[in-house]
Amino acid sequence: MSNTDAFTLAGKTYQSRLLVGTGKYQDLEETRLATEASGAEIVTVAIRRTNIGQNPNEANLLDVLPPDRYTILPNTAGCYTAEDAVRTCRLARELLDGHDLVKLEVLGDEKTLYPDVVQTLKAAETLVAEGFKVMVYTSDDPIIARELETIGCIAVMPLAAPIGSGLGIQNRYNVLEIVENAQVPVLVDAGVGTASDAAIAMELGCDGVLMNTAIAAAKDPVLMASAMKKAIQAGREAFLAGRMPRKRYASASSPLDGTFF
Amino acid sequence: MSNTDAFTLAGKTYQSRLLVGTGKYQDLEETRLATEASGAEIVTVAIRRTNIGQNPNEANLLDVLPPDRYTILPNTAGCYTAEDAVRTCRLARELLDGHDLVKLEVLGDEKTLYPDVVQTLKAAETLVAEGFKVMVYTSDDPIIARELETIGCIAVMPLAAPIGSGLGIQNRYNVLEIVENAQVPVLVDAGVGTASDAAIAMELGCDGVLMNTAIAAAKDPVLMASAMKKAIQAGREAFLAGRMPRKRYASASSPLDGTFF
Amino acid sequence: MSNTDAFTLAGKTYQSRLLVGTGKYQDLEETRLATEASGAEIVTVAIRRTNIGQNPNEANLLDVLPPDRYTILPNTAGCYTAEDAVRTCRLARELLDGHDLVKLEVLGDEKTLYPDVVQTLKAAETLVAEGFKVMVYTSDDPIIARELETIGCIAVMPLAAPIGSGLGIQNRYNVLEIVENAQVPVLVDAGVGTASDAAIAMELGCDGVLMNTAIAAAKDPVLMASAMKKAIQAGREAFLAGRMPRKRYASASSPLDGTFF
Amino acid sequence: MSNTDAFTLAGKTYQSRLLVGTGKYQDLEETRLATEASGAEIVTVAIRRTNIGQNPNEANLLDVLPPDRYTILPNTAGCYTAEDAVRTCRLARELLDGHDLVKLEVLGDEKTLYPDVVQTLKAAETLVAEGFKVMVYTSDDPIIARELETIGCIAVMPLAAPIGSGLGIQNRYNVLEIVENAQVPVLVDAGVGTASDAAIAMELGCDGVLMNTAIAAAKDPVLMASAMKKAIQAGREAFLAGRMPRKRYASASSPLDGTFF
Repeated sequence: MSNTDAFTLAGKTYQSRLLVGTGKYQDLEETRLATEASGAEIVTVAIRRTNIGQNPNEANLLDVLPPDRYTILPNTAGCYTAEDAVRTCRLARELLDGHDLVKLEVLGDEKTLYPDVVQTLKAAETLVAEGFKVMVYTSDDPIIARELETIGCIAVMPLAAPIGSGLGIQNRYNVLEIVENAQVPVLVDAGVGTASDAAIAMELGCDGVLMNTAIAAAKDPVLMASAMKKAIQAGREAFLAGRMPRKRYASASSPLDGTFF
Repeated sequence: MSNTDAFTLAGKTYQSRLLVGTGKYQDLEETRLATEASGAEIVTVAIRRTNIGQNPNEANLLDVLPPDRYTILPNTAGCYTAEDAVRTCRLARELLDGHDLVKLEVLGDEKTLYPDVVQTLKAAETLVAEGFKVMVYTSDDPIIARELETIGCIAVMPLAAPIGSGLGIQNRYNVLEIVENAQVPVLVDAGVGTASDAAIAMELGCDGVLMNTAIAAAKDPVLMASAMKKAIQAGREAFLAGRMPRKRYASASSPLDGTFF
Repeated sequence: MSNTDAFTLAGKTYQSRLLVGTGKYQDLEETRLATEASGAEIVTVAIRRTNIGQNPNEANLLDVLPPDRYTILPNTAGCYTAEDAVRTCRLARELLDGHDLVKLEVLGDEKTLYPDVVQTLKAAETLVAEGFKVMVYTSDDPIIARELETIGCIAVMPLAAPIGSGLGIQNRYNVLEIVENAQVPVLVDAGVGTASDAAIAMELGCDGVLMNTAIAAAKDPVLMASAMKKAIQAGREAFLAGRMPRKRYASASSPLDGTFF
Repeated sequence: MSNTDAFTLAGKTYQSRLLVGTGKYQDLEETRLATEASGAEIVTVAIRRTNIGQNPNEANLLDVLPPDRYTILPNTAGCYTAEDAVRTCRLARELLDGHDLVKLEVLGDEKTLYPDVVQTLKAAETLVAEGFKVMVYTSDDPIIARELETIGCIAVMPLAAPIGSGLGIQNRYNVLEIVENAQVPVLVDAGVGTASDAAIAMELGCDGVLMNTAIAAAKDPVLMASAMKKAIQAGREAFLAGRMPRKRYASASSPLDGTFF
C-alpha cells in the first residue's frame, strides 16, 4: 500500500495504526521485543503503575522504549474519578517535560473496568481546558462519543469488549455509528483477543486499534505482536479496497438485504 | 515469523498459504497484478473456461502466470458429474505435460455451486487410482472430509460458505472438527469475503485458504489481494502464537465456559 | 408454570412480562386487537404524540385500552432534554389523575433514537425527587444502569439495539452484566425484531421486554403479538428451567470453554 | 392462531410441531411428565436401546407413552451402516405390528454422532423400496437433502448442530436453503439447546423440530418441555406473521443490505 495512507494524530504522522500497552509482560525485555514486533510507534503507559522516572532506583520503562523512538502516551488506568484522572495527567506532563498528549480513562467498576462516562466527560472538559491533547477511552455509546468530540478530544476510543476480556467487537453497529459520525480519529481500545478481531475493527473503518492483553497474554507474545501488526494492515487495506457484496450465493441477483434472520 | 513454518503440498514447499483463483478479473493484466500482490505461489485455473493453450490464437493465461513461477492447479469448475470431472482432469494433465496435481470439484447445483459430495467421492477414487494428486473441494461435513482423506486425497478443502457469496465461515465447529482430525492439509475453499474471514480460517488451524471472488470483486482487487496476503499471515501467526483465553472481564477467575448463551 | 412466577412492579403484580407500545398501528382497532393478542397488562403511551384526553374532540386511546384493564405507562418519547422529559411526566401525571408511574426516555439523536444518558440521569434525579416511580430507557452500559438504580429508578430498561431497528440483542454480555448486578427489574426496551429475540432476552434473565415496532410493523401484527406473548413465556420458562450445557458434541467430557474462537 | 396451520405427516394431521425423543430421562415417570408438558404428539424411540416389548419382563416405554395417544416414531440411533439401519427398521415394523413410519439415522462417528450421508442415502433407498415412510436425519448439506427427497423420504431432518451439543443452529443459510427448496416437511433434528434455538428454527420456515437432550438435560426437564412447546409455537407464528425488516435504526430509508460487515 502506498505511503499516502499515513495516520495523523496531534499533528504527527505515523505509519502504524497499532497502538500498544506496555503492561502485563514478564519483564522489560519481553516488553521491548513484543513492542518492536508490533511495529507500534505509539505506546501507552499507566502512569500510576509504571516507573518512567518517578523512582530513580528502579528499572525505567523508557530505557527500553525510548521517547525519541516511540510516542509515549501516558494513560490514567486505575483512576475511578475525574479528579484522580486529571491529577494523574498533570503528573504525567510534569514527568515528561510538558508532554501534553494523554489517554484519559476513568473507570466505573473494578470488576469489569468499564468506563464511567459521566466522570470521563467531566475529566475531558478540564483536561482540554488545561491544554491537554486528550485521547479518550469510552463505551461504544455513539452519543457519548459525539459529546467527547464536541468537548475537544482529539481521538475517541470506544471499547470493543471489556478490558482484558479478549471477546472481540461485541457491537459492530455502534462502532460503525461512531466511525461514520466522527471528525476525529476513532480507535478501538480494549476487548480485542486475536488477529481477526483487530482486522474487523479496521474493516469497520476505525483509524486504529490499541491493545495490550491480546499480545501480552498470548502464549508467544512476540509472535502475536507480529500477527497483530499484519492484521491491522490487512484490515485497513481491506477497508480501503472495498469488499465484495455479501450474497447468498454467486448467482443471487442482489446482495443480502438482511431480512432473512 | 521464522522460515520453518513453510507449507508443504505434494512434496513441494511454499512460503505462501494463500491460493488464488484466476477468473472474474477485468483482463489478464489485472489478473497478473492481483496475483502478484497476493503473494500466491499456487494459482488455480478452471480448465473448461480458461485458455491455457487449447486455443493457440487467443490470449493464454500462462503468459501472465508462467508455470515456472507459479504452481498451476487445474480445477474442474463447471463439472456436475464424476465423469465430467475425471475427463477434465485428464485433459488438464495432457495440456500441462503430465502435471498430476488437480483440484477436484463436482458441483451439485448451478444456483448455489454447492458440492455434490457423492459424485465427488466417486471422482476422487478414480483420480487417485489414476495417479492424480487430488486436492478436493467439499462441504464442511467432517465425515465426508475424513472419507476423502481415506481415499487418498492430498488436501481437503471445505467451503466456508457458498462460492462467490462472501459470507465468511458459517460453521466454525465443522471446520475445526475437520482440522483436528485431518492428517492432510485442510484449506478453506470458497466463501471468504474480506480479510478478517481469511484470518479466522487460519486461526482455526487451517493450513491455507483458496479464494477468487473476494479479491476479484473488490472495488480495488490489487489492494484487496495485498490485504488477503497479510490476513493469511496474521491468522497463521495468531494460531501459532496461541491466543489469550476469552473471559467476561480481566478479573474473571476462569475463562468463559460457554454456558451463558 | 406455576402462578408463583408473577412479575411485580411498583407494588403491583402482573402475569405478563411483555410490555407493549401503542404507536405505529394503522388504527385504534388494530391497536386494540394486537394489544389483546399480546396478553400485555402494561401499555406504554407517548404523551406528546397520543391523545389520552388532551383533545376532547379526537379519538382517545384510553377508549380502546381502558385504564381499569391496563396499567398505562406514560413515556417521554420525543424528548431530547431533561427539562422536556420532566415537563412531559408532570403533564402525564395531571392527565392521569395523579398516576406516578412513568417511563423516562431522553433521546440523544433523532436519527438513531439512542438515549442521552447524561440527560437521562439528570431527569431521573428530578423525577424521583418529585415522587415519580421511574422506569428508565437507557443504553446497555452497566455503569449507567447501576447509577440509575442508585438514583432510585424502579426498573432499568436497556436497549437491545436501536429503537425500530429489529436487530435483536447486540451485546449479550452487557445485558447479562446489568441483569446480574441489578436489584430492580431489568427489561429490554427497543431493538427486538422477532420472537426469538424476545426469548433470548428472557433467557439472559431479564424480567421483561417492552416492544412496539416488532409487533406493529410485522405483516400480521395481531399474529406477531401472539408470537411474542409465547416467546416471552418460553424464554422465561427456559431461564427458570436451567438450560443444558453447551458442548462440542454429546461425548465431550466438559462444556465448551470458549477458547476456540 | 387458527387451527388451519396444522402439520401433516404421512397423511396424519398434528397440532404440535415439536417432536421429542424419549431417552436420557431419569426414569419413565420423568419421561411421561416431560413428554406431556411438551405437547408432542410424535415421540421417537431408539429401537436398539429401548424396550417396547422385546423384553416382556422389563418396563415398557409404551406403558407410559401409549401408541393410541402418541405416534411412535422408531429410530435407528446407534446404527453405523446402512445394513444395520435397515435391519433395525424391519425389527421395529415387526414389533409395532406393521407400523411403517421410521426415522432413519446412520451415524458416521461415535464422537460427534454426525450422519454418514452416503450410508444414509443407501439405507433410504432400500427402506423406501420396502414401503417404509422414511423421515431422515442428515447433515445441513442442501444437495444431500434434495437427493433424500428425490429418493422418496417423506421428511428431511437436518441437524442444527451435533446431537447432544446444545449449540443451536450453526448454519442458518443452509437450513434456509433446504427449507426453500423442499416439497416435503423439513424438521430440525439435533443441536437445539434452549427455547430461542427452537424459535429460530421455526422462524427460518422449518415445519418442526425434534429434540431430546435440550429437554432431558435441563435442570428442570418438565419446565423446559413447556418452554419448548411455547417456543415452537412462537417461532411458527412469527414466521407466519412476517417479521419487520431489519434496519440500522428506525429512520433508515431502506433495510440493511448486509454490506457493512
